[in-house]
Amino acid sequence: MYKYSSLFDFTSLLLQKMGFSKENSEHCARVFLAAELRGISTHGVMRLADYYKLWEAGRINVTPDIRIVHETPSTAVIDGDGTIGKLPAIKAMKTAIAKASAVGTGWVAVRNSSNFGIAAYYAMMALEHDMIGFACTNASPLVAPTFSAVPMLGTNPVAMAIPAGNQPPFVADFATTPVTRGKFTIAAKKGEKISFGYAQDAEGNPTDDPTSIERGGSMLPLGGDREHGSHKGYCMAAMVDILAAVLSGANFGPFVPPMMSYLPLLEQKSGEGWGHFIGAMRIDAFMSITDFKTRMDKWIEAMRSATPVKGQEKVLIPGDPERENEEKISREGISLMPQVVADLEKIAEKTGIKF
Amino acid sequence: MYKYSSLFDFTSLLLQKMGFSKENSEHCARVFLAAELRGISTHGVMRLADYYKLWEAGRINVTPDIRIVHETPSTAVIDGDGTIGKLPAIKAMKTAIAKASAVGTGWVAVRNSSNFGIAAYYAMMALEHDMIGFACTNASPLVAPTFSAVPMLGTNPVAMAIPAGNQPPFVADFATTPVTRGKFTIAAKKGEKISFGYAQDAEGNPTDDPTSIERGGSMLPLGGDREHGSHKGYCMAAMVDILAAVLSGANFGPFVPPMMSYLPLLEQKSGEGWGHFIGAMRIDAFMSITDFKTRMDKWIEAMRSATPVKGQEKVLIPGDPERENEEKISREGISLMPQVVADLEKIAEKTGIKF
Repeated sequence: MYKYSSLFDFTSLLLQKMGFSKENSEHCARVFLAAELRGISTHGVMRLADYYKLWEAGRINVTPDIRIVHETPSTAVIDGDGTIGKLPAIKAMKTAIAKASAVGTGWVAVRNSSNFGIAAYYAMMALEHDMIGFACTNASPLVAPTFSAVPMLGTNPVAMAIPAGNQPPFVADFATTPVTRGKFTIAAKKGEKISFGYAQDAEGNPTDDPTSIERGGSMLPLGGDREHGSHKGYCMAAMVDILAAVLSGANFGPFVPPMMSYLPLLEQKSGEGWGHFIGAMRIDAFMSITDFKTRMDKWIEAMRSATPVKGQEKVLIPGDPERENEEKISREGISLMPQVVADLEKIAEKTGIKF
Repeated sequence: MYKYSSLFDFTSLLLQKMGFSKENSEHCARVFLAAELRGISTHGVMRLADYYKLWEAGRINVTPDIRIVHETPSTAVIDGDGTIGKLPAIKAMKTAIAKASAVGTGWVAVRNSSNFGIAAYYAMMALEHDMIGFACTNASPLVAPTFSAVPMLGTNPVAMAIPAGNQPPFVADFATTPVTRGKFTIAAKKGEKISFGYAQDAEGNPTDDPTSIERGGSMLPLGGDREHGSHKGYCMAAMVDILAAVLSGANFGPFVPPMMSYLPLLEQKSGEGWGHFIGAMRIDAFMSITDFKTRMDKWIEAMRSATPVKGQEKVLIPGDPERENEEKISREGISLMPQVVADLEKIAEKTGIKF
């Protein structure tokens, strides 16, 4: 078990070693560690090794000039200057909150960015301002649109955070696929099959092989197949791609570059880097904050009081599992897989930063 | 086959007979007929009989005072005054467009409304203004959240319309369930089963019985079961319900009243009528309209050029099937099911309006 503070310090010092400012390093460390606390370890410190290699390959700008390149009272476009996605995403939500404070809502499209980690982090920044927060991002192509034999879209997650009163906030954060890519990796490592409905092989046939993607296959959109509504999952992934990338000036669809140093950059571009779309809406731009929070409590209580199906304890509210993780992990410490520990020890040795 | 103009006139005259103004009747007729042209006949003139009965039961306000009750530069809340949902939804999108013209984006929550028909109609109103349009609505509870044995949410559809250049616009419009309720009705009439993954019985067990809902069962969220991501479909339906109803002051979740005259109103309320959430974003609040349209064309062409799976001709863009329907039906006329014709003939006889 690792302590939050020691992993936070390691992360921040490593990023500073790579050349990020102390302030930016701490911003990023907070997002990496938030993923650990919420139990989304696939976006936690296990990613540091990837970033370290990307930095060694000169593919991350550690001294970015993150700037607003276009704006109106309720919108902005931010250029991330090729840095780690967490930094422009934080600036985007701060900008959205400021615009929402002024005119009711704020919507910020980000280009020239990269993987931003957990979308919920940015959506949740709106909560303390009594605002609804929204965040989504595109990503490298892994997902086949309905009827496509090839991947054309990312897993393109969407997050929305909504404040409540006595109840904890509603926090949805989900990829627009049945499961995340991480499930494939874990099944492959364990020598297990994946469920049908998650993937297709290189010919577009249904498959339960977790290595199908490495061999020319694709993930499937939420819904799985046409009969079960995969065209709706495709619509969602497409809407995210268009808002985050077509509208911001980032690479979209099949042109989104990979975030792994061992994968070559693509020959064709359709913009700059990855794209995000981030927004904030002031509750009191619609109704009194007190009334809204009372109504949200009633909404949450209604769902919690629904009779569960046999074998299940209760109906969950989006954000419940992650909040329970956060309470447990804050108390007990962060557990890391042996491979992650080995990777971080190697980096510690290379950089002289104590792990 | 029926001509657009004759069904339009019948619809408008019937609504006028019920007491709606000529202008409001024509607004509504356009939305009913747009559904017919797009091939979404479940939201077309077959609904007129239901509205006629709702009117007979005194459950539709035909002389509504639809008004903005709260606003900021980029937001508004509209009270629909208990009328047919199409009218406040049209006013909401006009308001959103005006606000987007002024400050970049406009977002309007509607309460005290009812079923608004096809969501795409309102989203598409933004297209001619070079804006992205968004519309969603809540609806009577039919859908069980993941792990719930009882229905707590509506099929809560979402629509987004995005302008392109040489390509037709992107128009997504989908319920947050694998299929619409209409599929159940048709299967039941034909004595056929439905696919597993669409519904559960009153105990929460998977079922292929299309009459399960009438017998205490529920529709399932997009994803079908937990293993295939139903919690994500539940998140989407929940997000729609909260934006459309909690934020507007409408009834939410299990409290949304039925839109059929033979179903009693619910004992408990959590607000007024049904809720919608409608928005518009000016393209040039983010980038030049020309650049955006060129990029959208490139996005659409990339998806169209994806290699299709064996047995499929091509990858479709959201809105393609409905546009193809519209071309065909505009040319060949609107076909109505015998039961719909019989219903409309009965109303024609009662009201003296020529059908």
